[in-house]
Amino acid sequence: MFVSETKITVRYAETDQMGIVHHSNYPIWFEAGRTDFIKKLGMSYSDMEKKGIMLPVIELKCIYKGSAEYEDEIIVRTSVKDVTYTRIAFSYEVFKQGRKDSITIGETIHVWTDTNIKPVNIKKRMPEVYELMKKVAENNGKQRNI
Amino acid sequence: MFVSETKITVRYAETDQMGIVHHSNYPIWFEAGRTDFIKKLGMSYSDMEKKGIMLPVIELKCIYKGSAEYEDEIIVRTSVKDVTYTRIAFSYEVFKQGRKDSITIGETIHVWTDTNIKPVNIKKRMPEVYELMKKVAENNGKQRNI
Amino acid sequence: MFVSETKITVRYAETDQMGIVHHSNYPIWFEAGRTDFIKKLGMSYSDMEKKGIMLPVIELKCIYKGSAEYEDEIIVRTSVKDVTYTRIAFSYEVFKQGRKDSITIGETIHVWTDTNIKPVNIKKRMPEVYELMKKVAENNGKQRNI
Amino acid sequence: MFVSETKITVRYAETDQMGIVHHSNYPIWFEAGRTDFIKKLGMSYSDMEKKGIMLPVIELKCIYKGSAEYEDEIIVRTSVKDVTYTRIAFSYEVFKQGRKDSITIGETIHVWTDTNIKPVNIKKRMPEVYELMKKVAENNGKQRNI
Repeated sequence: MFVSETKITVRYAETDQMGIVHHSNYPIWFEAGRTDFIKKLGMSYSDMEKKGIMLPVIELKCIYKGSAEYEDEIIVRTSVKDVTYTRIAFSYEVFKQGRKDSITIGETIHVWTDTNIKPVNIKKRMPEVYELMKKVAENNGKQRNI
Repeated sequence: MFVSETKITVRYAETDQMGIVHHSNYPIWFEAGRTDFIKKLGMSYSDMEKKGIMLPVIELKCIYKGSAEYEDEIIVRTSVKDVTYTRIAFSYEVFKQGRKDSITIGETIHVWTDTNIKPVNIKKRMPEVYELMKKVAENNGKQRNI
Repeated sequence: MFVSETKITVRYAETDQMGIVHHSNYPIWFEAGRTDFIKKLGMSYSDMEKKGIMLPVIELKCIYKGSAEYEDEIIVRTSVKDVTYTRIAFSYEVFKQGRKDSITIGETIHVWTDTNIKPVNIKKRMPEVYELMKKVAENNGKQRNI
Repeated sequence: MFVSETKITVRYAETDQMGIVHHSNYPIWFEAGRTDFIKKLGMSYSDMEKKGIMLPVIELKCIYKGSAEYEDEIIVRTSVKDVTYTRIAFSYEVFKQGRKDSITIGETIHVWTDTNIKPVNIKKRMPEVYELMKKVAENNGKQRNI
Protein backbone atom coordinates (compact mmCIF):
# COMPACT_ATOMS: atom_id res chain seq x y z
CA MET A 1 0.00 0.00 0.00
CA PHE A 2 1.37 3.35 -1.06
CA VAL A 3 0.88 6.29 1.25
CA SER A 4 1.51 9.96 0.44
CA GLU A 5 2.05 12.71 2.97
CA THR A 6 0.75 16.19 2.27
CA LYS A 7 1.61 19.17 4.43
CA ILE A 8 -0.97 21.84 5.20
CA THR A 9 -0.71 24.93 7.39
CA VAL A 10 -4.00 25.75 9.11
CA ARG A 11 -5.48 28.99 7.79
CA TYR A 12 -7.22 31.52 10.03
CA ALA A 13 -10.30 31.29 7.81
CA GLU A 14 -10.46 27.57 8.61
CA THR A 15 -11.07 28.20 12.32
CA ASP A 16 -14.50 28.75 13.82
CA GLN A 17 -15.74 30.37 17.01
CA MET A 18 -14.83 27.26 19.01
CA GLY A 19 -11.23 28.30 18.30
CA ILE A 20 -10.49 25.14 16.32
CA VAL A 21 -10.60 24.09 12.68
CA HIS A 22 -14.20 23.80 11.49
CA HIS A 23 -15.05 20.18 10.68
CA SER A 24 -16.05 21.02 7.08
CA ASN A 25 -12.40 21.70 6.22
CA TYR A 26 -11.25 18.10 6.61
CA PRO A 27 -12.99 16.91 3.42
CA ILE A 28 -11.15 19.74 1.63
CA TRP A 29 -7.85 18.61 3.16
CA PHE A 30 -8.64 15.02 2.14
CA GLU A 31 -9.05 16.35 -1.40
CA ALA A 32 -5.70 18.15 -1.22
CA GLY A 33 -4.19 14.85 -0.04
CA ARG A 34 -5.85 13.01 -2.93
CA THR A 35 -4.54 15.51 -5.48
CA ASP A 36 -1.06 15.15 -4.07
CA PHE A 37 -1.28 11.35 -3.91
CA ILE A 38 -2.18 11.14 -7.61
CA LYS A 39 0.57 13.61 -8.48
CA LYS A 40 3.15 11.62 -6.54
CA LEU A 41 2.15 8.56 -8.60
CA GLY A 42 3.29 10.49 -11.66
CA MET A 43 -0.20 11.37 -12.88
CA SER A 44 -2.25 14.54 -12.50
CA TYR A 45 -5.92 14.75 -11.65
CA SER A 46 -6.12 17.94 -13.74
CA ASP A 47 -4.88 15.95 -16.73
CA MET A 48 -7.33 13.14 -16.05
CA GLU A 49 -10.17 15.66 -16.14
CA LYS A 50 -8.80 17.14 -19.36
CA LYS A 51 -8.83 13.61 -20.82
CA GLY A 52 -12.49 13.31 -19.84
CA ILE A 53 -12.42 11.35 -16.58
CA MET A 54 -13.85 12.76 -13.35
CA LEU A 55 -14.11 11.33 -9.85
CA PRO A 56 -17.14 12.78 -8.06
CA VAL A 57 -17.48 11.78 -4.41
CA ILE A 58 -20.42 9.49 -3.66
CA GLU A 59 -19.61 8.76 -0.03
CA LEU A 60 -17.72 10.61 2.69
CA LYS A 61 -16.94 9.55 6.23
CA CYS A 62 -14.98 11.48 8.86
CA ILE A 63 -14.22 10.54 12.41
CA TYR A 64 -12.95 13.43 14.50
CA LYS A 65 -10.77 12.40 17.43
CA GLY A 66 -8.95 15.61 18.17
CA SER A 67 -8.75 19.15 16.92
CA ALA A 68 -6.36 21.44 15.09
CA GLU A 69 -5.69 25.11 15.59
CA TYR A 70 -4.64 28.12 13.54
CA GLU A 71 -1.04 27.88 12.25
CA ASP A 72 -0.74 24.18 13.16
CA GLU A 73 1.32 22.18 10.68
CA ILE A 74 -0.86 19.32 9.49
CA ILE A 75 0.05 16.11 7.68
CA VAL A 76 -2.56 14.31 5.58
CA ARG A 77 -1.65 10.68 4.90
CA THR A 78 -3.55 9.42 1.85
CA SER A 79 -3.86 5.93 0.43
CA VAL A 80 -6.10 3.96 -1.92
CA LYS A 81 -8.24 1.52 -0.01
CA ASP A 82 -9.82 -0.23 -2.94
CA VAL A 83 -10.42 0.16 -6.65
CA THR A 84 -12.87 -1.53 -9.03
CA TYR A 85 -13.81 -0.91 -12.68
CA THR A 86 -16.45 1.56 -11.52
CA ARG A 87 -15.26 2.96 -8.19
CA ILE A 88 -12.27 3.94 -6.10
CA ALA A 89 -12.02 4.43 -2.33
CA PHE A 90 -9.37 6.57 -0.67
CA SER A 91 -8.59 6.68 3.03
CA TYR A 92 -7.00 9.48 5.02
CA GLU A 93 -5.33 10.06 8.34
CA VAL A 94 -4.75 13.61 9.54
CA PHE A 95 -1.98 14.35 12.04
CA LYS A 96 -0.44 17.35 13.68
CA GLN A 97 3.17 17.31 12.53
CA GLY A 98 5.37 15.38 14.90
CA ARG A 99 2.49 13.71 16.74
CA LYS A 100 1.74 10.00 16.67
CA ASP A 101 -2.04 10.05 17.12
CA SER A 102 -4.25 11.11 14.26
CA ILE A 103 -6.76 13.88 14.93
CA THR A 104 -9.13 12.87 12.13
CA ILE A 105 -9.52 9.83 9.92
CA GLY A 106 -11.72 9.53 6.90
CA GLU A 107 -12.68 7.83 3.73
CA THR A 108 -14.14 8.89 0.41
CA ILE A 109 -15.70 6.69 -2.25
CA HIS A 110 -15.74 7.97 -5.83
CA VAL A 111 -17.29 6.83 -9.05
CA TRP A 112 -15.34 7.01 -12.33
CA THR A 113 -17.38 9.20 -14.71
CA ASP A 114 -17.12 11.08 -17.98
CA THR A 115 -17.44 14.86 -18.07
CA ASN A 116 -21.24 14.58 -18.12
CA ILE A 117 -20.95 12.79 -14.75
CA LYS A 118 -22.09 9.52 -16.35
CA PRO A 119 -20.37 6.39 -14.94
CA VAL A 120 -17.65 4.78 -17.06
CA ASN A 121 -15.64 1.56 -16.83
CA ILE A 122 -12.17 2.84 -16.03
CA LYS A 123 -10.50 -0.40 -17.06
CA LYS A 124 -11.83 0.15 -20.58
CA ARG A 125 -11.39 3.90 -20.72
CA MET A 126 -7.98 4.23 -19.09
CA PRO A 127 -6.54 0.78 -18.39
CA GLU A 128 -3.20 2.23 -17.32
CA VAL A 129 -4.92 4.29 -14.60
CA TYR A 130 -6.84 1.26 -13.40
CA GLU A 131 -3.74 -0.93 -13.28
CA LEU A 132 -1.74 1.69 -11.43
CA MET A 133 -4.47 2.22 -8.86
CA LYS A 134 -4.89 -1.54 -8.46
CA LYS A 135 -1.18 -1.81 -7.80
CA VAL A 136 -1.04 1.00 -5.24
CA ALA A 137 -4.07 -0.43 -3.42
CA GLU A 138 -2.40 -3.80 -2.98
CA ASN A 139 -1.46 -4.35 0.57
CA ASN A 140 1.24 -6.90 1.01
CA GLY A 141 1.66 -6.13 4.65
CA LYS A 142 4.12 -3.33 4.05
CA GLN A 143 3.43 0.35 3.74
CA ARG A 144 5.53 2.30 1.33
CA ASN A 145 5.65 6.06 1.47
CA ILE A 146 5.61 7.92 -1.86
CA MET B 1 -39.97 12.44 15.18
CA PHE B 2 -39.80 16.15 14.51
CA VAL B 3 -38.40 17.30 11.17
CA SER B 4 -37.46 20.86 10.23
CA GLU B 5 -37.12 22.17 6.68
CA THR B 6 -34.48 24.78 5.91
CA LYS B 7 -34.30 26.57 2.58
CA ILE B 8 -30.95 27.36 0.97
CA THR B 9 -30.20 29.00 -2.38
CA VAL B 10 -27.02 27.59 -3.96
CA ARG B 11 -24.25 30.21 -4.05
CA TYR B 12 -21.88 30.57 -7.00
CA ALA B 13 -18.95 30.14 -4.62
CA GLU B 14 -20.34 26.73 -3.67
CA THR B 15 -19.92 25.36 -7.20
CA ASP B 16 -16.70 23.77 -8.47
CA GLN B 17 -15.24 23.19 -11.90
CA MET B 18 -17.50 20.14 -12.40
CA GLY B 19 -20.31 22.72 -12.58
CA ILE B 20 -22.03 21.34 -9.49
CA VAL B 21 -21.98 22.06 -5.76
CA HIS B 22 -18.69 20.92 -4.23
CA HIS B 23 -19.27 18.04 -1.83
CA SER B 24 -17.69 19.91 1.10
CA ASN B 25 -20.66 22.28 1.22
CA TYR B 26 -23.15 19.66 2.35
CA PRO B 27 -21.73 19.44 5.90
CA ILE B 28 -22.14 23.23 6.06
CA TRP B 29 -25.74 22.94 4.88
CA PHE B 30 -26.34 20.20 7.46
CA GLU B 31 -25.11 22.66 10.07
CA ALA B 32 -27.47 25.35 8.79
CA GLY B 33 -30.27 22.78 9.04
CA ARG B 34 -29.20 21.90 12.59
CA THR B 35 -29.17 25.57 13.64
CA ASP B 36 -32.63 26.04 12.20
CA PHE B 37 -33.94 22.81 13.76
CA ILE B 38 -32.85 23.93 17.23
CA LYS B 39 -34.31 27.39 16.66
CA LYS B 40 -37.65 25.94 15.56
CA LEU B 41 -37.73 23.99 18.85
CA GLY B 42 -37.73 27.35 20.61
CA MET B 43 -34.07 27.22 21.64
CA SER B 44 -30.98 28.79 20.11
CA TYR B 45 -27.63 27.14 19.61
CA SER B 46 -25.98 30.54 20.09
CA ASP B 47 -27.60 30.77 23.51
CA MET B 48 -26.55 27.24 24.39
CA GLU B 49 -22.94 28.20 23.62
CA LYS B 50 -23.30 31.35 25.71
CA LYS B 51 -24.51 29.12 28.56
CA GLY B 52 -21.38 27.02 28.19
CA ILE B 53 -22.53 24.02 26.14
CA MET B 54 -20.98 23.16 22.79
CA LEU B 55 -21.65 20.36 20.31
CA PRO B 56 -18.48 19.55 18.37
CA VAL B 57 -18.91 16.99 15.58
CA ILE B 58 -17.21 13.65 16.20
CA GLU B 59 -18.57 11.80 13.20
CA LEU B 60 -19.84 12.82 9.78
CA LYS B 61 -21.31 10.70 7.01
CA CYS B 62 -22.60 11.86 3.64
CA ILE B 63 -24.01 9.82 0.80
CA TYR B 64 -24.22 11.75 -2.46
CA LYS B 65 -26.91 10.46 -4.82
CA GLY B 66 -27.38 13.45 -7.08
CA SER B 67 -26.04 16.94 -7.55
CA ALA B 68 -27.16 20.52 -7.16
CA GLU B 69 -26.35 23.55 -9.28
CA TYR B 70 -25.93 27.29 -8.88
CA GLU B 71 -29.18 29.07 -7.97
CA ASP B 72 -31.01 25.82 -7.18
CA GLU B 73 -33.44 26.12 -4.30
CA ILE B 74 -32.47 23.47 -1.76
CA ILE B 75 -34.39 22.04 1.20
CA VAL B 76 -32.51 20.49 4.11
CA ARG B 77 -34.72 18.22 6.23
CA THR B 78 -33.19 17.81 9.70
CA SER B 79 -34.14 15.50 12.53
CA VAL B 80 -32.64 14.08 15.73
CA LYS B 81 -31.84 10.41 15.29
CA ASP B 82 -30.78 9.68 18.84
CA VAL B 83 -29.74 11.41 22.03
CA THR B 84 -27.93 10.14 25.13
CA TYR B 85 -26.47 11.87 28.19
CA THR B 86 -23.18 12.30 26.34
CA ARG B 87 -24.05 12.42 22.64
CA ILE B 88 -26.60 13.46 20.05
CA ALA B 89 -27.01 12.30 16.46
CA PHE B 90 -28.74 14.33 13.76
CA SER B 91 -29.78 13.09 10.34
CA TYR B 92 -30.30 15.10 7.17
CA GLU B 93 -31.93 14.75 3.79
CA VAL B 94 -31.17 17.32 1.10
CA PHE B 95 -33.66 17.89 -1.74
CA LYS B 96 -34.04 20.21 -4.67
CA GLN B 97 -37.22 22.09 -3.97
CA GLY B 98 -40.24 20.37 -5.45
CA ARG B 99 -38.44 17.07 -6.08
CA LYS B 100 -39.21 13.83 -4.32
CA ASP B 101 -35.79 12.16 -4.36
CA SER B 102 -33.08 13.42 -2.07
CA ILE B 103 -29.74 14.36 -3.64
CA THR B 104 -27.71 13.84 -0.46
CA ILE B 105 -28.35 12.22 2.89
CA GLY B 106 -26.15 12.44 5.91
CA GLU B 107 -25.64 12.09 9.60
CA THR B 108 -23.57 13.84 12.24
CA ILE B 109 -22.76 12.64 15.73
CA HIS B 110 -21.87 15.21 18.36
CA VAL B 111 -20.59 15.14 21.89
CA TRP B 112 -21.98 17.49 24.55
CA THR B 113 -19.03 19.51 25.90
CA ASP B 114 -18.22 22.55 27.96
CA THR B 115 -16.41 25.51 26.42
CA ASN B 116 -13.06 23.81 26.95
CA ILE B 117 -14.35 21.02 24.70
CA LYS B 118 -14.46 18.62 27.68
CA PRO B 119 -17.39 16.16 27.64
CA VAL B 120 -20.29 16.87 29.97
CA ASN B 121 -23.43 14.97 31.00
CA ILE B 122 -26.17 17.04 29.38
CA LYS B 123 -28.90 15.54 31.55
CA LYS B 124 -27.10 17.00 34.58
CA ARG B 125 -26.00 20.27 33.00
CA MET B 126 -29.16 21.17 31.08
CA PRO B 127 -31.90 18.64 31.85
CA GLU B 128 -34.49 20.65 29.92
CA VAL B 129 -32.36 20.43 26.76
CA TYR B 130 -31.91 16.69 27.21
CA GLU B 131 -35.62 16.10 27.78
CA LEU B 132 -36.60 18.18 24.76
CA MET B 133 -34.14 16.39 22.50
CA LYS B 134 -35.28 13.03 23.84
CA LYS B 135 -38.85 13.95 23.02
CA VAL B 136 -38.09 15.16 19.49
CA ALA B 137 -36.07 12.01 18.80
CA GLU B 138 -38.96 9.75 19.72
CA ASN B 139 -40.40 8.14 16.69
CA ASN B 140 -43.93 6.94 17.22
CA GLY B 141 -44.43 6.12 13.58
CA LYS B 142 -45.48 9.62 12.63
CA GLN B 143 -43.33 12.44 11.34
CA ARG B 144 -44.25 15.90 12.42
CA ASN B 145 -42.86 18.92 10.61
CA ILE B 146 -41.78 21.85 12.75
CA MET C 1 -31.75 53.25 -8.59
CA PHE C 2 -33.16 49.83 -7.85
CA VAL C 3 -32.10 48.10 -4.64
CA SER C 4 -32.71 44.49 -3.71
CA GLU C 5 -32.64 43.06 -0.21
CA THR C 6 -31.35 39.56 0.38
CA LYS C 7 -31.66 37.80 3.71
CA ILE C 8 -28.84 35.58 5.00
CA THR C 9 -28.55 33.71 8.30
CA VAL C 10 -24.95 33.54 9.54
CA ARG C 11 -23.63 29.98 9.43
CA TYR C 12 -21.38 28.56 12.13
CA ALA C 13 -18.80 27.71 9.47
CA GLU C 14 -18.63 31.41 8.58
CA THR C 15 -17.31 32.37 12.02
CA ASP C 16 -13.63 32.36 12.94
CA GLN C 17 -11.72 32.18 16.20
CA MET C 18 -12.35 35.88 16.84
CA GLY C 19 -15.98 34.80 17.35
CA ILE C 20 -17.22 36.86 14.40
CA VAL C 21 -17.86 36.28 10.71
CA HIS C 22 -14.56 35.89 8.85
CA HIS C 23 -14.03 38.78 6.44
CA SER C 24 -13.74 36.49 3.41
CA ASN C 25 -17.45 35.65 3.65
CA TYR C 26 -18.64 39.13 2.71
CA PRO C 27 -17.62 38.79 -0.97
CA ILE C 28 -19.66 35.56 -1.01
CA TRP C 29 -22.63 37.36 0.52
CA PHE C 30 -22.22 40.15 -2.06
CA GLU C 31 -22.44 37.46 -4.72
CA ALA C 32 -25.60 36.04 -3.14
CA GLY C 33 -27.01 39.58 -3.19
CA ARG C 34 -26.03 39.99 -6.86
CA THR C 35 -27.69 36.70 -7.81
CA ASP C 36 -30.86 37.76 -6.03
CA PHE C 37 -30.77 41.27 -7.53
CA ILE C 38 -30.61 39.87 -11.06
CA LYS C 39 -33.39 37.39 -10.29
CA LYS C 40 -35.62 40.12 -8.90
CA LEU C 41 -35.15 41.98 -12.18
CA GLY C 42 -36.81 39.00 -13.86
CA MET C 43 -33.58 37.54 -15.26
CA SER C 44 -31.34 34.74 -14.00
CA TYR C 45 -27.58 34.74 -13.86
CA SER C 46 -27.65 30.97 -14.42
CA ASP C 47 -29.54 31.56 -17.68
CA MET C 48 -27.12 34.29 -18.73
CA GLU C 49 -24.25 31.83 -18.29
CA LYS C 50 -26.15 29.20 -20.27
CA LYS C 51 -26.55 31.79 -23.04
CA GLY C 52 -22.78 32.31 -23.01
CA ILE C 53 -22.30 35.46 -20.92
CA MET C 54 -20.21 35.48 -17.74
CA LEU C 55 -19.35 38.24 -15.28
CA PRO C 56 -15.96 37.54 -13.68
CA VAL C 57 -14.98 39.97 -10.93
CA ILE C 58 -12.05 42.25 -11.78
CA GLU C 59 -12.17 44.44 -8.71
CA LEU C 60 -13.41 43.99 -5.16
CA LYS C 61 -13.53 46.48 -2.31
CA CYS C 62 -14.85 45.91 1.20
CA ILE C 63 -14.96 48.31 4.11
CA TYR C 64 -15.66 46.60 7.41
CA LYS C 65 -17.28 48.86 10.01
CA GLY C 66 -18.78 46.33 12.35
CA SER C 67 -19.08 42.62 12.77
CA ALA C 68 -21.67 39.87 12.58
CA GLU C 69 -22.07 36.78 14.69
CA TYR C 70 -23.37 33.24 14.33
CA GLU C 71 -27.15 33.08 13.78
CA ASP C 72 -27.43 36.82 13.09
CA GLU C 73 -30.01 37.66 10.47
CA ILE C 74 -28.23 39.68 7.78
CA ILE C 75 -29.62 41.87 5.00
CA VAL C 76 -27.53 42.52 1.88
CA ARG C 77 -28.73 45.57 -0.07
CA THR C 78 -27.51 45.34 -3.67
CA SER C 79 -27.63 47.89 -6.46
CA VAL C 80 -25.98 48.60 -9.80
CA LYS C 81 -23.60 51.52 -9.54
CA ASP C 82 -22.69 51.80 -13.18
CA VAL C 83 -22.82 49.86 -16.42
CA THR C 84 -20.95 50.28 -19.72
CA TYR C 85 -20.71 48.14 -22.87
CA THR C 86 -17.78 46.29 -21.32
CA ARG C 87 -18.25 46.48 -17.55
CA ILE C 88 -20.73 46.61 -14.70
CA ALA C 89 -20.24 47.76 -11.11
CA PHE C 90 -22.41 46.61 -8.22
CA SER C 91 -22.47 48.11 -4.75
CA TYR C 92 -23.49 46.47 -1.51
CA GLU C 93 -24.49 47.41 2.01
CA VAL C 94 -24.66 44.72 4.67
CA PHE C 95 -26.85 45.21 7.74
CA LYS C 96 -27.92 43.24 10.74
CA GLN C 97 -31.67 42.96 10.41
CA GLY C 98 -33.48 45.79 12.13
CA ARG C 99 -30.34 47.94 12.51
CA LYS C 100 -29.80 51.26 10.77
CA ASP C 101 -26.00 51.23 10.44
CA SER C 102 -24.35 48.97 7.91
CA ILE C 103 -21.63 46.63 9.18
CA THR C 104 -19.90 46.29 5.81
CA ILE C 105 -20.08 48.10 2.51
CA GLY C 106 -18.51 47.00 -0.70
CA GLU C 107 -18.25 47.19 -4.44
CA THR C 108 -17.43 44.75 -7.22
CA ILE C 109 -16.50 45.57 -10.80
CA HIS C 110 -17.10 42.91 -13.44
CA VAL C 111 -16.27 42.51 -17.09
CA TRP C 112 -18.80 41.04 -19.55
CA THR C 113 -17.18 37.99 -21.12
CA ASP C 114 -17.98 34.93 -23.18
CA THR C 115 -17.52 31.44 -21.75
CA ASN C 116 -13.82 31.52 -22.63
CA ILE C 117 -13.54 34.55 -20.34
CA LYS C 118 -12.87 36.81 -23.34
CA PRO C 119 -14.42 40.31 -23.08
CA VAL C 120 -17.55 40.99 -25.10
CA ASN C 121 -19.63 44.08 -25.86
CA ILE C 122 -22.81 43.40 -23.93
CA LYS C 123 -24.80 45.98 -25.88
CA LYS C 124 -24.16 43.96 -29.03
CA ARG C 125 -24.44 40.50 -27.50
CA MET C 126 -27.46 41.03 -25.26
CA PRO C 127 -28.86 44.53 -25.82
CA GLU C 128 -31.89 43.79 -23.60
CA VAL C 129 -29.58 43.01 -20.67
CA TYR C 130 -27.58 46.18 -21.24
CA GLU C 131 -30.69 48.35 -21.46
CA LEU C 132 -32.20 46.84 -18.33
CA MET C 133 -28.99 47.31 -16.34
CA LYS C 134 -28.67 50.89 -17.65
CA LYS C 135 -32.19 51.57 -16.46
CA VAL C 136 -31.69 50.09 -13.00
CA ALA C 137 -28.46 52.02 -12.56
CA GLU C 138 -30.14 55.35 -13.24
CA ASN C 139 -30.40 57.37 -10.15
CA ASN C 140 -33.07 60.00 -10.31
CA GLY C 141 -32.79 60.87 -6.66
CA LYS C 142 -35.17 58.17 -5.56
CA GLN C 143 -34.38 54.65 -4.44
CA ARG C 144 -36.81 51.97 -5.35
CA ASN C 145 -36.73 48.61 -3.62
CA ILE C 146 -37.24 45.55 -5.80
CA MET D 1 10.88 46.61 2.36
CA PHE D 2 10.75 42.97 3.36
CA VAL D 3 8.79 40.58 1.16
CA SER D 4 7.83 37.01 1.99
CA GLU D 5 6.88 34.35 -0.51
CA THR D 6 4.26 31.77 0.39
CA LYS D 7 3.51 28.77 -1.78
CA ILE D 8 -0.05 27.53 -2.23
CA THR D 9 -1.37 24.67 -4.37
CA VAL D 10 -4.84 25.41 -5.74
CA ARG D 11 -7.46 23.12 -4.20
CA TYR D 12 -10.34 21.66 -6.20
CA ALA D 13 -12.78 23.16 -3.71
CA GLU D 14 -11.36 26.60 -4.56
CA THR D 15 -12.54 26.39 -8.18
CA ASP D 16 -16.00 27.43 -9.34
CA GLN D 17 -18.13 26.59 -12.35
CA MET D 18 -16.14 29.04 -14.50
CA GLY D 19 -13.32 26.50 -14.12
CA ILE D 20 -11.08 28.98 -12.29
CA VAL D 21 -10.36 29.89 -8.68
CA HIS D 22 -13.34 31.69 -7.16
CA HIS D 23 -12.44 35.30 -6.35
CA SER D 24 -13.34 34.90 -2.67
CA ASN D 25 -10.30 32.67 -2.13
CA TYR D 26 -7.74 35.41 -2.73
CA PRO D 27 -8.45 37.17 0.60
CA ILE D 28 -7.87 33.78 2.26
CA TRP D 29 -4.58 33.39 0.40
CA PHE D 30 -3.62 36.93 1.41
CA GLU D 31 -4.21 35.85 5.00
CA ALA D 32 -2.04 32.76 4.53
CA GLY D 33 0.65 35.08 3.15
CA ARG D 34 0.24 37.40 6.13
CA THR D 35 0.57 34.52 8.59
CA ASP D 36 3.70 33.35 6.85
CA PHE D 37 5.16 36.88 6.63
CA ILE D 38 4.80 37.37 10.39
CA LYS D 39 6.27 33.93 11.05
CA LYS D 40 9.27 34.64 8.83
CA LEU D 41 9.89 37.77 10.90
CA GLY D 42 10.36 35.47 13.87
CA MET D 43 6.99 36.18 15.44
CA SER D 44 3.73 34.24 15.34
CA TYR D 45 0.29 35.66 14.85
CA SER D 46 -1.09 32.85 17.02
CA ASP D 47 1.17 34.03 19.83
CA MET D 48 0.15 37.64 19.33
CA GLU D 49 -3.49 36.60 19.75
CA LYS D 50 -2.60 34.60 22.86
CA LYS D 51 -0.95 37.76 24.22
CA GLY D 52 -4.18 39.66 23.62
CA ILE D 53 -3.58 41.46 20.31
CA MET D 54 -5.78 40.89 17.27
CA LEU D 55 -5.72 42.37 13.79
CA PRO D 56 -9.24 42.43 12.33
CA VAL D 57 -9.46 43.57 8.71
CA ILE D 58 -11.15 46.94 8.19
CA GLU D 59 -10.47 47.30 4.48
CA LEU D 60 -9.84 44.87 1.64
CA LYS D 61 -9.03 45.57 -1.98
CA CYS D 62 -8.38 43.04 -4.74
CA ILE D 63 -7.63 43.64 -8.39
CA TYR D 64 -7.98 40.51 -10.51
CA LYS D 65 -5.87 40.56 -13.66
CA GLY D 66 -5.71 36.90 -14.50
CA SER D 67 -6.95 33.61 -13.20
CA ALA D 68 -5.64 30.47 -11.57
CA GLU D 69 -6.72 26.88 -12.04
CA TYR D 70 -6.88 23.67 -10.03
CA GLU D 71 -3.44 22.30 -9.11
CA ASP D 72 -1.63 25.50 -10.12
CA GLU D 73 1.31 26.33 -7.90
CA ILE D 74 0.73 29.83 -6.56
CA ILE D 75 3.13 32.28 -4.92
CA VAL D 76 1.78 35.00 -2.63
CA ARG D 77 4.26 37.85 -2.12
CA THR D 78 3.41 39.73 1.08
CA SER D 79 4.80 42.98 2.44
CA VAL D 80 3.89 45.67 4.95
CA LYS D 81 2.84 48.84 3.20
CA ASP D 82 2.47 51.03 6.23
CA VAL D 83 2.15 50.87 10.00
CA THR D 84 0.92 53.38 12.55
CA TYR D 85 0.16 53.17 16.29
CA THR D 86 -3.40 52.13 15.45
CA ARG D 87 -3.27 50.44 12.05
CA ILE D 88 -1.23 48.30 9.70
CA ALA D 89 -1.57 47.84 5.94
CA PHE D 90 -0.30 44.78 4.08
CA SER D 91 0.00 44.43 0.32
CA TYR D 92 -0.02 41.25 -1.74
CA GLU D 93 0.91 40.09 -5.19
CA VAL D 94 -0.24 36.66 -6.36
CA PHE D 95 1.66 34.85 -9.11
CA LYS D 96 1.58 31.51 -10.81
CA GLN D 97 4.92 29.96 -10.02
CA GLY D 98 7.51 30.77 -12.65
CA ARG D 99 5.46 33.58 -14.22
CA LYS D 100 6.43 37.23 -14.19
CA ASP D 101 2.99 38.86 -14.25
CA SER D 102 0.83 38.79 -11.16
CA ILE D 103 -2.70 37.43 -11.51
CA THR D 104 -4.09 39.31 -8.53
CA ILE D 105 -2.89 42.16 -6.36
CA GLY D 106 -4.43 43.31 -3.17
CA GLU D 107 -4.24 45.21 0.05
CA THR D 108 -5.69 44.82 3.52
CA ILE D 109 -5.86 47.41 6.28
CA HIS D 110 -6.12 46.20 9.86
CA VAL D 111 -6.68 47.82 13.20
CA TRP D 112 -4.72 46.73 16.28
CA THR D 113 -7.25 45.60 18.89
CA ASP D 114 -7.52 43.72 22.15
CA THR D 115 -9.47 40.47 22.36
CA ASN D 116 -12.72 42.38 22.77
CA ILE D 117 -12.01 43.93 19.36
CA LYS D 118 -11.43 47.34 20.97
CA PRO D 119 -8.67 49.43 19.34
CA VAL D 120 -5.35 49.63 21.14
CA ASN D 121 -2.15 51.65 20.66
CA ILE D 122 0.31 48.99 19.56
CA LYS D 123 3.33 51.16 20.34
CA LYS D 124 2.23 51.17 23.97
CA ARG D 125 0.99 47.59 24.16
CA MET D 126 3.74 45.84 22.22
CA PRO D 127 6.47 48.34 21.32
CA GLU D 128 8.71 45.57 19.95
CA VAL D 129 6.01 44.55 17.45
CA TYR D 130 5.50 48.15 16.38
CA GLU D 131 9.23 48.76 15.93
CA LEU D 132 9.70 45.56 13.94
CA MET D 133 6.77 46.32 11.65
CA LYS D 134 8.00 49.90 11.21
CA LYS D 135 11.38 48.56 10.20
CA VAL D 136 10.03 46.03 7.70
CA ALA D 137 7.77 48.67 6.16
CA GLU D 138 10.69 50.98 5.49
CA ASN D 139 11.40 51.13 1.85
CA ASN D 140 14.88 52.25 1.06
CA GLY D 141 14.54 51.47 -2.61
CA LYS D 142 15.58 47.88 -2.20
CA GLN D 143 13.38 44.85 -1.71
CA ARG D 144 14.64 42.13 0.51
CA ASN D 145 13.10 38.70 0.46
CA ILE D 146 12.57 36.99 3.80
